Amino acid sequence: MKEKLRIGVVGAGRIGKIHAENIAYLIPRARLEGVADVMMTPAMESWAKGLGARIVTKDPMALLADKDIDAIIVCSSTDTHADMTVAAAKTGKHVFCEKPVDLTIAKVRAALDAVKRAGVRLQVGFNRRFDHNFRRIRELALDGQLGDIHVVKITSRDPAPPNPAYVAVSGGLFMDMMIHDFDMARFQAGSEIVELHATGAVLVDPAIGAAGDVDTAIVTLKFANGAIGVIDNSRKAVYGYDQRVEVFGSRGAAQAENDAASTVRLSNEAGVTGEKPLYFFLERYKNAFIDEMKAFVDAVLDGKDTPVTGEDGLRDLQVALAAKRSLAEGRPVRIDEIV
Amino acid sequence: MKEKLRIGVVGAGRIGKIHAENIAYLIPRARLEGVADVMMTPAMESWAKGLGARIVTKDPMALLADKDIDAIIVCSSTDTHADMTVAAAKTGKHVFCEKPVDLTIAKVRAALDAVKRAGVRLQVGFNRRFDHNFRRIRELALDGQLGDIHVVKITSRDPAPPNPAYVAVSGGLFMDMMIHDFDMARFQAGSEIVELHATGAVLVDPAIGAAGDVDTAIVTLKFANGAIGVIDNSRKAVYGYDQRVEVFGSRGAAQAENDAASTVRLSNEAGVTGEKPLYFFLERYKNAFIDEMKAFVDAVLDGKDTPVTGEDGLRDLQVALAAKRSLAEGRPVRIDEIV
Amino acid sequence: MKEKLRIGVVGAGRIGKIHAENIAYLIPRARLEGVADVMMTPAMESWAKGLGARIVTKDPMALLADKDIDAIIVCSSTDTHADMTVAAAKTGKHVFCEKPVDLTIAKVRAALDAVKRAGVRLQVGFNRRFDHNFRRIRELALDGQLGDIHVVKITSRDPAPPNPAYVAVSGGLFMDMMIHDFDMARFQAGSEIVELHATGAVLVDPAIGAAGDVDTAIVTLKFANGAIGVIDNSRKAVYGYDQRVEVFGSRGAAQAENDAASTVRLSNEAGVTGEKPLYFFLERYKNAFIDEMKAFVDAVLDGKDTPVTGEDGLRDLQVALAAKRSLAEGRPVRIDEIV
Amino acid sequence: MKEKLRIGVVGAGRIGKIHAENIAYLIPRARLEGVADVMMTPAMESWAKGLGARIVTKDPMALLADKDIDAIIVCSSTDTHADMTVAAAKTGKHVFCEKPVDLTIAKVRAALDAVKRAGVRLQVGFNRRFDHNFRRIRELALDGQLGDIHVVKITSRDPAPPNPAYVAVSGGLFMDMMIHDFDMARFQAGSEIVELHATGAVLVDPAIGAAGDVDTAIVTLKFANGAIGVIDNSRKAVYGYDQRVEVFGSRGAAQAENDAASTVRLSNEAGVTGEKPLYFFLERYKNAFIDEMKAFVDAVLDGKDTPVTGEDGLRDLQVALAAKRSLAEGRPVRIDEIV
Repeated sequence: MKEKLRIGVVGAGRIGKIHAENIAYLIPRARLEGVADVMMTPAMESWAKGLGARIVTKDPMALLADKDIDAIIVCSSTDTHADMTVAAAKTGKHVFCEKPVDLTIAKVRAALDAVKRAGVRLQVGFNRRFDHNFRRIRELALDGQLGDIHVVKITSRDPAPPNPAYVAVSGGLFMDMMIHDFDMARFQAGSEIVELHATGAVLVDPAIGAAGDVDTAIVTLKFANGAIGVIDNSRKAVYGYDQRVEVFGSRGAAQAENDAASTVRLSNEAGVTGEKPLYFFLERYKNAFIDEMKAFVDAVLDGKDTPVTGEDGLRDLQVALAAKRSLAEGRPVRIDEIV
Repeated sequence: MKEKLRIGVVGAGRIGKIHAENIAYLIPRARLEGVADVMMTPAMESWAKGLGARIVTKDPMALLADKDIDAIIVCSSTDTHADMTVAAAKTGKHVFCEKPVDLTIAKVRAALDAVKRAGVRLQVGFNRRFDHNFRRIRELALDGQLGDIHVVKITSRDPAPPNPAYVAVSGGLFMDMMIHDFDMARFQAGSEIVELHATGAVLVDPAIGAAGDVDTAIVTLKFANGAIGVIDNSRKAVYGYDQRVEVFGSRGAAQAENDAASTVRLSNEAGVTGEKPLYFFLERYKNAFIDEMKAFVDAVLDGKDTPVTGEDGLRDLQVALAAKRSLAEGRPVRIDEIV
Repeated sequence: MKEKLRIGVVGAGRIGKIHAENIAYLIPRARLEGVADVMMTPAMESWAKGLGARIVTKDPMALLADKDIDAIIVCSSTDTHADMTVAAAKTGKHVFCEKPVDLTIAKVRAALDAVKRAGVRLQVGFNRRFDHNFRRIRELALDGQLGDIHVVKITSRDPAPPNPAYVAVSGGLFMDMMIHDFDMARFQAGSEIVELHATGAVLVDPAIGAAGDVDTAIVTLKFANGAIGVIDNSRKAVYGYDQRVEVFGSRGAAQAENDAASTVRLSNEAGVTGEKPLYFFLERYKNAFIDEMKAFVDAVLDGKDTPVTGEDGLRDLQVALAAKRSLAEGRPVRIDEIV
Repeated sequence: MKEKLRIGVVGAGRIGKIHAENIAYLIPRARLEGVADVMMTPAMESWAKGLGARIVTKDPMALLADKDIDAIIVCSSTDTHADMTVAAAKTGKHVFCEKPVDLTIAKVRAALDAVKRAGVRLQVGFNRRFDHNFRRIRELALDGQLGDIHVVKITSRDPAPPNPAYVAVSGGLFMDMMIHDFDMARFQAGSEIVELHATGAVLVDPAIGAAGDVDTAIVTLKFANGAIGVIDNSRKAVYGYDQRVEVFGSRGAAQAENDAASTVRLSNEAGVTGEKPLYFFLERYKNAFIDEMKAFVDAVLDGKDTPVTGEDGLRDLQVALAAKRSLAEGRPVRIDEIV
């Protein structure tokens, strides 16, 4: 067993930077070997070198070609995820790929096949499973404290909508935003979604509607184990990032409230006021990003399955596509209709 | 204007007793004139006289015939609600009728027609609108603090399921239990439900399934004003009566948590533990029962519309029937399909 | 055993009215027989008769002379409490006396002696012991869930200061306000206070200082059982009536938060805001007033000790006088110095 | 201005390790140059080199002699703090010294004199001022949202008592534990403590009493600005590290609750249960340790006063000694009695 996993990061945008810094500083079993970004700037180069990266390059292939790199973190633009995963797998590198692997079933399947053939590990970046609150709920369920799961409820609201241009390329609310919640629902139910029904509305920004998407949606779920569930999303909550999960079962219910910057409450003539939820995913999921990477490193070094597999990524995509179809056709859709 | 509204209560079961005692003791503008119950026992008679009732009888018609009674509270068995309402209206009495007025559209319409012809007031017993928590949310909305309403979310879980025999005659979960939540949803949205989609499961008690009903359900809603909503129900929450409402809008969100018997939290090796929610509707809605009756008395004495009209009762029934159909047919149903 | 305790209320000011109405409407084992007030007005008379009082009079002695009255509730002005208690006891009536019985040890002792000689029951109106939150803490302690009591902490802040004229006659903060907390501390510790040290300041209103009193104070306590405690008082909390208790022991700690009018929280750009505490004692202790009277009625009818005895009232007064002395002399004072 | 502060850490015990790792990984403006520990082991050496330390030595003087080290972090045993501070100052190094600088006034004064003569910066390790919750309260106060400060309340309870041997050398509860709270009280009041009164008891462990100390204590405070305050300490809270602060003022009150590992609450037949507070100071003040070091680095690099000065350390010690005397002599003690 190797002592440290040697890692190359492809794509040094917002999320790539977070992963690179976490690897360099906060994950003792990993070492940052290289950073590649097609838009590499001098500032980025200096930052990467400051993190101790041996290879700093515009060419992702330089990382793949390096014999001393064991794993690749794919943080480049979404349209390159699948190809980069395939290429990395072919050179025998383990892969951590940001979500989504792709917006099409076909390309995801191709990437999964390549990974399988290469015999490498793949983890998809559904970071929320590593959130301290949501993980705690799952632990209570696995510990039997909730009994049989009856209902999974997820609320997920962003503090501000993306610009409509992004909405167009992102695949829309179900593919870009609610896909995280579909993954969370499967994780919490411990069971696959088999059918869903989507309701949506344009209430936040008419431009989102003009781009063919909704900005507010509720989706009901049926799981293979008989449980049912519901997710509600909004592109804009004025009070910040609203990320709550509730799992209700035969022996009890577990509820995760939002995180805030402090526990302080101010009592005055206006009432008793606590802080807003942490602003957005960088703040709320700061530790989840670290923990998902630790889990990836551990899985590879210890020869275990990754906690979020390529199949998870595929299934989440199918569910998102089913939601899109349900909304379009105004009817419940079974996930096995999506092939 | 009369000083006090003189009231006769028909039906002295659990809820009839509560209304009679509230009228006798806690509603200064009302006076309890009579109590009728077809099963009148000596104990009941002694209780009613202790409350100061002038007429205590087995015959509801004796109350209707009394010239000094202004209003009738209908708390007899559900199958008599509509007929009793019609009969009371015909004698010129104002009517407070426990929910539901009837399980069929036709009989409800007949009752509403009778009320209209008689020119009397009718209030239907959707007591939750008067709950301190839910009323507070509505006040915040009416005050503009939530902006445009985007999403209404209601969680409603009973502490224990009714016996399956009751399930059969009650009309089932949508007619008996969720109908309260449909009324709450309409109240909080300030808008009519125009379409819904129901998902259900039998997870609590197979006997409920055998009786042709579900015990766990999630219904998504579309409102006329563009808002959307969701209700989840379970017949059994081991921790007690779970009654929560959340209204999310463009300027903020308001959330009502459960009430408990105290605010005390015990910190020990097991964690930090607060009390369970109040056990069931008698405890949770104790004050709501008083306040709905006060509102009825005020409406009649002051010549105003009642806060929950016969039309509300009719609409709630239509929505419940639509939910039943949606579940049976596995498709979204528009409320105007229910005639 | 009598079926109902027949009660006369002396003094129909704010608190007398509450007791009279509770007795008339909400305490099934009691009956309101009479109301006396030296300032009886026509409105008061009409109110008392509406409650079913048989005797409505300016003369308290008329109640004491009535053979069909079993117990007297003393709600007249503080300077008459002790004399009225003595007079009532001499006519063989049981007595519920509002706090304080008197501001002097001598008169309290005289009243207690009279009660003892007459063999009647006496309860003093320390209503907070009956508060649902504080009672819950005590129940947890008695149930052994806190283990040995180590620390009792009480926070008690009024929403607004009394006018300075009242401060002068009331005996000051320790005698008028903190005396409630001394009683609570003894109740929660299950042990007598043996020594205390008082710290005080004039921070709210200089006029209170000019009247020779403080408006903000912290008193530390030593109990006979070895536990220690602390009370903090302020005459003015802008956010309302702040009434919290915490008991810390070897096996756990129990904490009572304030009550509010609803559980609703509003999330918006300013934060997450819940309601202020209930405004003042009439709102917060509404049920405690009912429950203390029920307890008095039960104690008399069932021949048990009252839950707050005359000795409690005497001890609370001694503690308050000790606090006053401690502040004046700038040193710890033992309660047995106060004789 | 230098780009990075070059730091040597003296003492690589528990807290020294935390500071060294924070400097190496999490404080961009600092660089770890050296680590000295008189008990340096091979494991420690390997750890220090892994952090990038250039000098790893048994001899603290080797760090002081190094021209490329700008500042020394003193984490050696308490009895060496003052001498090490003096020695470091004499070589022109800035000093961050763990609390307490010494247990005697004389040695602290000597250290402060040395620092002053050398013209270097000194920060004392009162880390709690940097806690996110307590800092938030102070920010609200500085922002005027609390108005004039009237009362400062601090609860501080350890999850488990130290062994009695440690109690003996630590100086006891006031010097070892409550000294943190004295510093917090001064910080939150924005004013010096001028007088105090201490009450104490041995309730947790008789061996602590046998060692001449108390394990439970309440101290009341008077501040120069007229505010008053109270601190309660216990050596053992079975539910974990209880660290709460409340500041009450003329315009409002701010209250900091404990931090927990998650926001999850489990509702079941036993109640509604959240997690215990974070276990102890390493967990609770993890970020405070980082932020105090960042503040030190910023102060030195930017030529500003450190946020916790040597004078703060001296004053906190005087207050702790006054508390000790108050308990011993059973009377209030003025801080200026301690010279």
